[in-house]
Amino acid sequence: MLHWDMATQMPAGGAEARSEQVATLKLVCHEIIADPSMPDLLSGAEAQNDLDPWQRANLVEMRRSWLHASALPGDLVEALSKASSTCEMVWRQARPNSDFAAVLPALRELLTLVQCVATLKAERLGVSPYDALLDQYEPGGSSAAIDAIFEPFARVLPGLIDDALVLQGRSRKPVAPEGPFPVEIQRQAAIKLMERIGFDFDHGRLDISLHPFCGGTPDDVRITTRYDTDDFRGALMGVLHETGHALYERGLPLAWRRQPVGHARGMSLHESQSLLVEMQVCRSRDFMEFAAPILRDTFGRRGPEWDADNLYRLGTQVERSLIRVDADEVTYPAHVILRYRLERALLAGDLKLEDLPEAWDEAMHELVGIVPPDDRQGCLQDIHWYDGAFGYFPTYTLGAMTAAQLFDAAKRADPAIAPGIAKGEFAPLLGWLRTNVHGQASRHSTAEIITAATGRKLDSAVFERHLRARYLAA
Amino acid sequence: MLHWDMATQMPAGGAEARSEQVATLKLVCHEIIADPSMPDLLSGAEAQNDLDPWQRANLVEMRRSWLHASALPGDLVEALSKASSTCEMVWRQARPNSDFAAVLPALRELLTLVQCVATLKAERLGVSPYDALLDQYEPGGSSAAIDAIFEPFARVLPGLIDDALVLQGRSRKPVAPEGPFPVEIQRQAAIKLMERIGFDFDHGRLDISLHPFCGGTPDDVRITTRYDTDDFRGALMGVLHETGHALYERGLPLAWRRQPVGHARGMSLHESQSLLVEMQVCRSRDFMEFAAPILRDTFGRRGPEWDADNLYRLGTQVERSLIRVDADEVTYPAHVILRYRLERALLAGDLKLEDLPEAWDEAMHELVGIVPPDDRQGCLQDIHWYDGAFGYFPTYTLGAMTAAQLFDAAKRADPAIAPGIAKGEFAPLLGWLRTNVHGQASRHSTAEIITAATGRKLDSAVFERHLRARYLAA
Repeated sequence: MLHWDMATQMPAGGAEARSEQVATLKLVCHEIIADPSMPDLLSGAEAQNDLDPWQRANLVEMRRSWLHASALPGDLVEALSKASSTCEMVWRQARPNSDFAAVLPALRELLTLVQCVATLKAERLGVSPYDALLDQYEPGGSSAAIDAIFEPFARVLPGLIDDALVLQGRSRKPVAPEGPFPVEIQRQAAIKLMERIGFDFDHGRLDISLHPFCGGTPDDVRITTRYDTDDFRGALMGVLHETGHALYERGLPLAWRRQPVGHARGMSLHESQSLLVEMQVCRSRDFMEFAAPILRDTFGRRGPEWDADNLYRLGTQVERSLIRVDADEVTYPAHVILRYRLERALLAGDLKLEDLPEAWDEAMHELVGIVPPDDRQGCLQDIHWYDGAFGYFPTYTLGAMTAAQLFDAAKRADPAIAPGIAKGEFAPLLGWLRTNVHGQASRHSTAEIITAATGRKLDSAVFERHLRARYLAA
Repeated sequence: MLHWDMATQMPAGGAEARSEQVATLKLVCHEIIADPSMPDLLSGAEAQNDLDPWQRANLVEMRRSWLHASALPGDLVEALSKASSTCEMVWRQARPNSDFAAVLPALRELLTLVQCVATLKAERLGVSPYDALLDQYEPGGSSAAIDAIFEPFARVLPGLIDDALVLQGRSRKPVAPEGPFPVEIQRQAAIKLMERIGFDFDHGRLDISLHPFCGGTPDDVRITTRYDTDDFRGALMGVLHETGHALYERGLPLAWRRQPVGHARGMSLHESQSLLVEMQVCRSRDFMEFAAPILRDTFGRRGPEWDADNLYRLGTQVERSLIRVDADEVTYPAHVILRYRLERALLAGDLKLEDLPEAWDEAMHELVGIVPPDDRQGCLQDIHWYDGAFGYFPTYTLGAMTAAQLFDAAKRADPAIAPGIAKGEFAPLLGWLRTNVHGQASRHSTAEIITAATGRKLDSAVFERHLRARYLAA
């Protein structure tokens, strides 16, 4: 809630004090989890014979939190926190100047500390250093499993991008509706679609922030967006993306709301829920059949650019672009696989930091087919590494693949789901997600949830089929 | 911040979870303060010889917090919290029905627990049970001191009310500007006056809530109001009142922001700051000279009802009324003295709860000169007792008297203060308050702060003189 407030309500002058307050709260939380009595309390609870499966899973999550919290000495946590803040600050100045050399010393110091963290957590968790970092965002994830999913896909992806662009080049270009689109009307359109999809405004809000996010708590889910009066599509698709995150949070089981097992499973499953709503559902032709009349009515506009087919094609344009956050569904995984490879090499010491810009450009050439003209549009574009977040990137594309596999399984499990989308009836889909994903919380591992819901382990096949169906079927 | 959010932003469905979250945070705070290691830590710190006066005062405040926190067994705290919630809920239904009998059982249970709390805290603090409750809101306060201030004033107050009404009856009646007054324009007017008085919007906000309050932190002070489109005066005077609270918070010393000694001194001094701004400054004729043109311009209105003199007289009308929160400056102390007497009698067992309505009506007759037609407008009107808050009421009138005495001293200390008000120049006044009140935080007791700032102990003389000058000078 304090983070939401900071991003949406707080006056600028409150920032410094708020940072200190949040740091204090984090410290208090850490001290509670890392209390010396915790190992005995955990062992004692684990030795009980009469625990039900949820209670047992709750203890697994408690131990996981404790392992992470107690793996690091206090001075390392503090040094990491300071180095992250410093490096992020330097990065904020270096990025607009495309000056990688300026941030290199701070990034080097930060990476050294991250390597320390990875080594210590690897010992505690009994996994590799990279997997120990990954576990912070993707509990139970492993680079071996990711490699097995990403590498075959990386071999077909460049060809897939080529083919999609060729096909797109032969089609009529879609036309973007012209603004201005007043913020209040954009907001009304967003709310109409959110409500239809299942967002509950009695337990949530939609606000404005510079960087869109989903925050709050399961009983009070707060999503944000930012509006561009020249083009309503960015804010709208952003809202639908965050709505997917919000539905997951809202669907977490009531009985375990404030226990570790009641939390969302991990970042890839969370991203799967936002991408399932945004990419699988809301960028589909069927959804546009439902949404186009609502958009026309809300904006009070008519014309061929407001036809469902035109809006659908606008939302599924493919482009070789430099910036990950602006990338389309087809090229996005290339941006992620690039970062996943590079961050592993950096952590392992196989890639030197000073060689990062060159390695970035080479990988962009190989995977996306273009080369950034400068580091601002290359290795300086994302905050993650400069904020100390190594091991996060793969969850984006794991999420995209999980979304495709879950949506495919849902449609096969309930024949009402697919036809419901063009009619604006999302209850069957939401019901399936509640049962198979949201309501499971952290009762099982991500892999177990996916296998139980879809009948198979996660792989790239369904995602690839989805891309071929949407982008390569003439 | 969570309370502010609850009152201004939170969707209704989030209330239950939020209450649980706030209760948990309170418990965590309590556990930190009541930690078994605390007495040794405090004694160790107090034994240091090299503490400066602020550090020493900080320890006094720490020990005071610890005494309060550790005085009560956990099950009593929990029972009190539950009984308060229950009684408040019953009261919310009983009040509109004017049904005192309906709330009597819950209030009886709650009062019994409050008596327990008072007895236990009295033992720890070495004061009387009532003074122990008072100390929660008014550190260092005592009923002996309050009696010495209130009782002489109570003897002259009924006559003062009579005289003010007679004089008012002989004067021309002021005319209220007629609405509608759009909320956005009212807000603009409020912001203009707030900024002139010294509210810093880079470190604060103005929002809407059902019950106006000042919340947030010294670096991010958030005040609220509610708007009536038929009459702008309630919201405006409410905003100016809360602005006084906000200036106090914002003026607390930077070096001690997050230490007990850096907190505002107590409720009477806090109320003195809101009433100094609202009653002493903003309801004065001088202030209206400054504010009337701003109000005319902002609302885009003209006419005799917008003259400074008319607006001044509108803001200083006296009436024998039943509801404390709607009472004017002259009758307000009568409402407070009544409650102070009754709550002391209830706590001591000298007044039986079932006799409260009758005792209320008698006291109203004696002090205000009217009798409520029902308990809704009598002993059921305020939430305080039904929420377990005994010992709070006197701080309102102590605050009013302190405001008068401080403002009088300020004007004598700096000759620029009085003439500044009609010109909208509040910096001299704010500077004096920063030095003599805000910046003192909890470094000294309330009594010491008042004596140092005004050269004498608090009494009712300056307040009475203020009332006579404003309401009895023909």
